[in-house]
Amino acid sequence: MAVPWEDLVAGVKKGNVRALAKMITRIENRDSGWKDAMKVIYPDTGATLVFGITGAPGAGKSTLTNKIAHGLVTRGYQVGIIAVDPSSPFSGGALLGDRLRMQDIATIEGIFIRSMATRGTLGGLCQGARDVIRIMDAFGKDIVLIETVGVGQDEIEVVRAADVVLVVSVPGLGDGIQTLKAGIMEIADLFVVNKADRDGADEVVSDIQAMLELSQEGEEAAPPVLKTSAVTGEGIESLVSMLVQLKEDKERPSRDDATRIMEEVLTLMEQELFHHIRSQWAGNGALQAAVNRIIDGERDPYSVAEDMLGTLKHEG
Amino acid sequence: MAVPWEDLVAGVKKGNVRALAKMITRIENRDSGWKDAMKVIYPDTGATLVFGITGAPGAGKSTLTNKIAHGLVTRGYQVGIIAVDPSSPFSGGALLGDRLRMQDIATIEGIFIRSMATRGTLGGLCQGARDVIRIMDAFGKDIVLIETVGVGQDEIEVVRAADVVLVVSVPGLGDGIQTLKAGIMEIADLFVVNKADRDGADEVVSDIQAMLELSQEGEEAAPPVLKTSAVTGEGIESLVSMLVQLKEDKERPSRDDATRIMEEVLTLMEQELFHHIRSQWAGNGALQAAVNRIIDGERDPYSVAEDMLGTLKHEG
Repeated sequence: MAVPWEDLVAGVKKGNVRALAKMITRIENRDSGWKDAMKVIYPDTGATLVFGITGAPGAGKSTLTNKIAHGLVTRGYQVGIIAVDPSSPFSGGALLGDRLRMQDIATIEGIFIRSMATRGTLGGLCQGARDVIRIMDAFGKDIVLIETVGVGQDEIEVVRAADVVLVVSVPGLGDGIQTLKAGIMEIADLFVVNKADRDGADEVVSDIQAMLELSQEGEEAAPPVLKTSAVTGEGIESLVSMLVQLKEDKERPSRDDATRIMEEVLTLMEQELFHHIRSQWAGNGALQAAVNRIIDGERDPYSVAEDMLGTLKHEG
Repeated sequence: MAVPWEDLVAGVKKGNVRALAKMITRIENRDSGWKDAMKVIYPDTGATLVFGITGAPGAGKSTLTNKIAHGLVTRGYQVGIIAVDPSSPFSGGALLGDRLRMQDIATIEGIFIRSMATRGTLGGLCQGARDVIRIMDAFGKDIVLIETVGVGQDEIEVVRAADVVLVVSVPGLGDGIQTLKAGIMEIADLFVVNKADRDGADEVVSDIQAMLELSQEGEEAAPPVLKTSAVTGEGIESLVSMLVQLKEDKERPSRDDATRIMEEVLTLMEQELFHHIRSQWAGNGALQAAVNRIIDGERDPYSVAEDMLGTLKHEG
């Protein structure tokens, strides 16, 4: 027997970690009743500061995320971490190395870690992240860190769920142009050059500053560029202080957020329709027959899709 | 005045390069009448061999793709290249370095290059690639090479449009585990260790073979691992010969392709519905009002999406 939603929701609101883990899983799985559960917790959300941490593979994002989390906990803040793992399109799960950090409950008091795969998230990665953030928020997390490999489009989408975005670079990866290619510069509120104890850190800082100058428009201030090192501890404390300040300054949704909210509603509508199409049509006999006619060269996919939608409309 | 679709289609079938470039652009833009144009060219498609080339940034994929294309042209084959560029989620276009290779018409006879952005492709990246491949096919291209940075989920989706997938590795990137993370191993039909003139190429070959052994199931033969070098020319000719063989052996769609075709029909249906939602709802007054109520804390996105879909159903 599954735990009733109302018990899970009550558990989450009381700060029960097991209820938190369970509710996230069931919301991710879109278990029957998920939407009503989200409606119930929604009024208890909106105060959490969501901090996106992205950058090329090998930039030391996981270690940096952990250091930031520990710094925040030391100052009395409750922290949630969402680790987004690029995952296999076929197995639908994370592989090897990723499994190691896949743990629902971190061993440090005040930190809750959750992995999310880029695939297999039924509600889509960005909406999935929004849902998980809200559950962590209702649980009482003050700050949620989302760590993602900033290379694919999907992962860039995730950081849209963040209030503030940090882009991590590192000396020696030669990723200057690659970062640019992925369009990450434009979504960054803050840059960090990590592993600053290594040679070449200052060059990376200059490179980023030069690129920022090129892309700067008007009077807008350029995002700050910090240096950090997990080895020497350089820069971590200033980063944590900045985050704490942002958290304290955060306001509830304003008219400025209308576009973001509209986008979420449209996404939720699309997902519902998508689900409808997949469940209703995938096993449909008329569609199967039409696919066979495409294989036999008698029809084409474009006409078949049109005909099937026509049937849908007639059925009302 | 836009050129009529029938003139474009006729031009493409006659092998007119300008018509090819124009038709691709208009199909990508989903210009009015696009679907009927695709229906017309569909019967002339299916013979092209689609070869996906993916791998980490910096693996030398572009150079390798060009070498393969030239090798094929030398042997008398007509080649199309689709270069998929990770693009900015905000500008919707490719940046800096990417612009350099963005050219609709390559200077070499028999090669046509086209860039596709991971974003801004209205039909979605995978369907967009399928459409472009078909137009190139109808034009008379024997082989289409799709080059993509194999890190994001979107880019992995693109190679689903390919008949054969090549994964490029390179010594010194330390990307063994990264390749695995992105789930690329499982979609590869062929591995290439590029820049084989560099130190460490043999180690990368062994690493890949070891990983393949680990993941091998049953009696299935492991995908071959080749070494190539653009500098010495090593391996390029054998790669080209393999491709030519695959092209000559290619058969028209069979019953085995039913899943892929079904997926395409469902995708086309979903896109039509999404388009409907976006155009019908984005400027909708009731939805705008509901968004404002969400901002004021009176409603939540989940309930609003539900209500709006309810209205949609009632309208029939």
